[in-house]
Amino acid sequence: MLALSYVRGCSALVAFRTAWRLEHLHFVSGITAAQIDEEVAKLLTLKARLGGDDGKHQFVLKTPKGTRDYNPKQMAIREKVFNIITRCFKRHGAETIDTPVFELKETLTGKYGEDSKLIYDLKDQGGELLSLRYDLTVPFARYLAMNKITNIKRYHIAKVYRRDNPAMTRGRYREFYQCDFDIAGQYDAMIPDAECLKIVHEILSELELGDFRIKVNDRRILDGMFAVCGVPDDKFRTICSTVDKLDKMPWEDVKKEMVNEKGLSEEAADQIGEYVSLQGGMDLAERLLLDPRMSQSKQACAGLSDIKLLFSYMQLFQVTDRVVFDLSLARGLDYYTGVIYEAVLTQAGVAPVSSDAQNGAEESVSVGSVAGGGRYDGLVGMFDPKGRKVPCVGVSIGIERIFSIMEQKAEASAEKVRTTEVQVLVASAQKNLLEERLRLVTELWNAGIKAEVMYKKNPKLLSQLQLCEETGIPLVAILGEQELKDGVVKLRVVATREEVDISRSDLIGEIKRRTSVA
Amino acid sequence: MLALSYVRGCSALVAFRTAWRLEHLHFVSGITAAQIDEEVAKLLTLKARLGGDDGKHQFVLKTPKGTRDYNPKQMAIREKVFNIITRCFKRHGAETIDTPVFELKETLTGKYGEDSKLIYDLKDQGGELLSLRYDLTVPFARYLAMNKITNIKRYHIAKVYRRDNPAMTRGRYREFYQCDFDIAGQYDAMIPDAECLKIVHEILSELELGDFRIKVNDRRILDGMFAVCGVPDDKFRTICSTVDKLDKMPWEDVKKEMVNEKGLSEEAADQIGEYVSLQGGMDLAERLLLDPRMSQSKQACAGLSDIKLLFSYMQLFQVTDRVVFDLSLARGLDYYTGVIYEAVLTQAGVAPVSSDAQNGAEESVSVGSVAGGGRYDGLVGMFDPKGRKVPCVGVSIGIERIFSIMEQKAEASAEKVRTTEVQVLVASAQKNLLEERLRLVTELWNAGIKAEVMYKKNPKLLSQLQLCEETGIPLVAILGEQELKDGVVKLRVVATREEVDISRSDLIGEIKRRTSVA
Repeated sequence: MLALSYVRGCSALVAFRTAWRLEHLHFVSGITAAQIDEEVAKLLTLKARLGGDDGKHQFVLKTPKGTRDYNPKQMAIREKVFNIITRCFKRHGAETIDTPVFELKETLTGKYGEDSKLIYDLKDQGGELLSLRYDLTVPFARYLAMNKITNIKRYHIAKVYRRDNPAMTRGRYREFYQCDFDIAGQYDAMIPDAECLKIVHEILSELELGDFRIKVNDRRILDGMFAVCGVPDDKFRTICSTVDKLDKMPWEDVKKEMVNEKGLSEEAADQIGEYVSLQGGMDLAERLLLDPRMSQSKQACAGLSDIKLLFSYMQLFQVTDRVVFDLSLARGLDYYTGVIYEAVLTQAGVAPVSSDAQNGAEESVSVGSVAGGGRYDGLVGMFDPKGRKVPCVGVSIGIERIFSIMEQKAEASAEKVRTTEVQVLVASAQKNLLEERLRLVTELWNAGIKAEVMYKKNPKLLSQLQLCEETGIPLVAILGEQELKDGVVKLRVVATREEVDISRSDLIGEIKRRTSVA
Repeated sequence: MLALSYVRGCSALVAFRTAWRLEHLHFVSGITAAQIDEEVAKLLTLKARLGGDDGKHQFVLKTPKGTRDYNPKQMAIREKVFNIITRCFKRHGAETIDTPVFELKETLTGKYGEDSKLIYDLKDQGGELLSLRYDLTVPFARYLAMNKITNIKRYHIAKVYRRDNPAMTRGRYREFYQCDFDIAGQYDAMIPDAECLKIVHEILSELELGDFRIKVNDRRILDGMFAVCGVPDDKFRTICSTVDKLDKMPWEDVKKEMVNEKGLSEEAADQIGEYVSLQGGMDLAERLLLDPRMSQSKQACAGLSDIKLLFSYMQLFQVTDRVVFDLSLARGLDYYTGVIYEAVLTQAGVAPVSSDAQNGAEESVSVGSVAGGGRYDGLVGMFDPKGRKVPCVGVSIGIERIFSIMEQKAEASAEKVRTTEVQVLVASAQKNLLEERLRLVTELWNAGIKAEVMYKKNPKLLSQLQLCEETGIPLVAILGEQELKDGVVKLRVVATREEVDISRSDLIGEIKRRTSVA
């Protein structure tokens, strides 16, 4: 089979080359542009199979589209952000798990609706068909069902993969981190849901990204609203995804899409329009429970009562200052069944706004969602052979956008980001002291001190001091003939240039004292 | 093409089903077992393409072959191991970087010799051809060349992927972590090389895995040895990979492979046999420099002089107790150009020895390599458009095997592994105190204390205390009507059942004092 397709490919190549040579840039009679495009596509596929141009192939030195390396400075920022987030998750008693970067293809099938086309598949090299994970929620649900776990509070920080149009200046990549916190288990209503919102509040506050707002809604309220506004059952989802566009386009356009594209009556659309313009707090939920139309839907009432309860818990958690009940919040994913939420940064000029040629349409959205989540009570049951349900609620922190903002802030600030934690450089003032330097740095390492030497036999003192300036090493332990004779080390503070002789036996204690964080 | 192969597959299915039905378990005349196996394999492939059984497809709840989830207990162990390793890398002044999990396919092409067949490719879904990274060294070299970096000391802890035969009980997976530390740059000989060995020594000592030995050799010594023993130039590599098997099979078998399979003369093989049986320290390097045959090779002499220098630095680093110069050490990868090393655990009974059906041949090797590395001065140049070289030396810690051992140890030990860090459970002794519990836990969270409440309106005190016992929470802050009236909280120590009333304003200080690590 393979051999045959190979031969066909090659003969196409020969035919094409001949035609090309004969006519060069002129029109080749009887061949359409579409046909040429088709032939080119075939040839490129063939070329890829052959492993590039014969011989003179120019290798491209890059990372795959939509991905990036993290350099040490970016990693230092990433570590700081992860530490804040992990500390918060641990403060709330979460355990952590990890799952493989790829899953059986069928594990992901039917979980993401239309977005399934963005899933990365692995090549069939024999054996199982595999796909890269698209989020951490579906692997979590698979994990719960597979291990018959009905109760867990876990976080998971890992990379996920989407063949999306990258907008890298805005922090949108094809490979990106998700930081998920989820609570699985049958509990009294709204307590875990409120804790998720408390966590979003804590993390965004601690990261100091400026003002933010957390929008809250409930899938049952949306469904109830659609029902009482006269949306036919089979149009709930598609109308819901149109409502989801309200943060990107004005109501007029959303309405047009509902009426012209989705075939909704103008009257129904207008009724929806009234509801989705509403924002408020617990009072709004109370008002809507008395609303003559809304109160006709049992679903909506259940959602509204829970929103009321949620707000009462959020008051105790001291987070209501940032939370708003917003009927226009819809969220894309199919699997949500109850409360949904999304956090956005509201301070203008914080988020990156650089232009991105590949995604001009979204340029106007300069401040985006940085966290989102909700309740998904049905997902685990999709994996259980007997369909047993495990109610879940969770939140995902949109870490890449946060990185982008933190990076910008670091660049704008005068403060230098250190990429190592070295406390002391072991240096020498004269030649032929490599052995003595290695002996001393060994003592320091063995005592747990972060230390370095230059990998040169005879480095100049000046270049050793410069290294400290450049990399932010605060102390230098200088050895010379005299110091060795006296049994001391000259300890120099880089910032002040102050120098003191410290006896060799006191050195470790002195370095620890000087570099301990108060 | 696809259609045709599809039809062929289906007709095979029909033919096979018919035969099976007619004869059932009896011998089908003219069909051999091998033919049946072949047909079955074809059918299974076809089935995989069709996406399983028609209609009644039973979804298999599993992770892909050769991969695993980490549960919270395993994650706690993993975190502990990573902390030890990361602390060591940081103590030695390393920065960290990260690279994407996949690379352009051509980045990996031609770097791994025969092992290239183990690379995972992504499906061609349009766009670039991608492969999952096979190790962290090639991405590191690509990163250096791409960013024109000539000097860096970096570590990288991340997952890599190999379509190998898994032997999961022995810690061999298709998805596994590597912990790499590398020093790139033009420095004085053997100083960075010696630091890599110091790092291996520190990490294996601190992990308390029992006795270990670090074998050291040099590619130039191997090549020189092959030359003086009369191995033809074009057979260096293949003979080298035969020598590499000496830790798995006796010399007699290695010799047989050299002579019978690789066509080496018996005389040459015997000469190699003498050399590769040699083990020692700096003294052995000195002796070989005077060896009439070995000293004829400039390459070998350069390698031997460097081994001498390496040992002198290792003495200063206090690691020679575990290091042995072993002429049989060859290591598989093509890219090494100088010093090579490998650490093995020597304490019997530590490593997992459970049987593994898929890889019976390796069962006898119960204690394996846990770290390895060496000098690779040519790899970065392969990526640089002008071929500029950046000398590199590095080490990779074989973390999965270490996890397996640590997990076994944890299971064998009586000590319970905690999977959360919660310091205090906020509990109530009576009903209707949910709000008070939420209020108090908020105070604790806001003060940075790791705290939990049960997600129930009215949990029993007993079940709250049981939760603490099960998950290792050391303290309980108990609220009751009386405590609320008195402005106190009853603080209970789970281990001793001791209870004290603490005034509300002192509570945070008291919890911090009691849970601070000395």
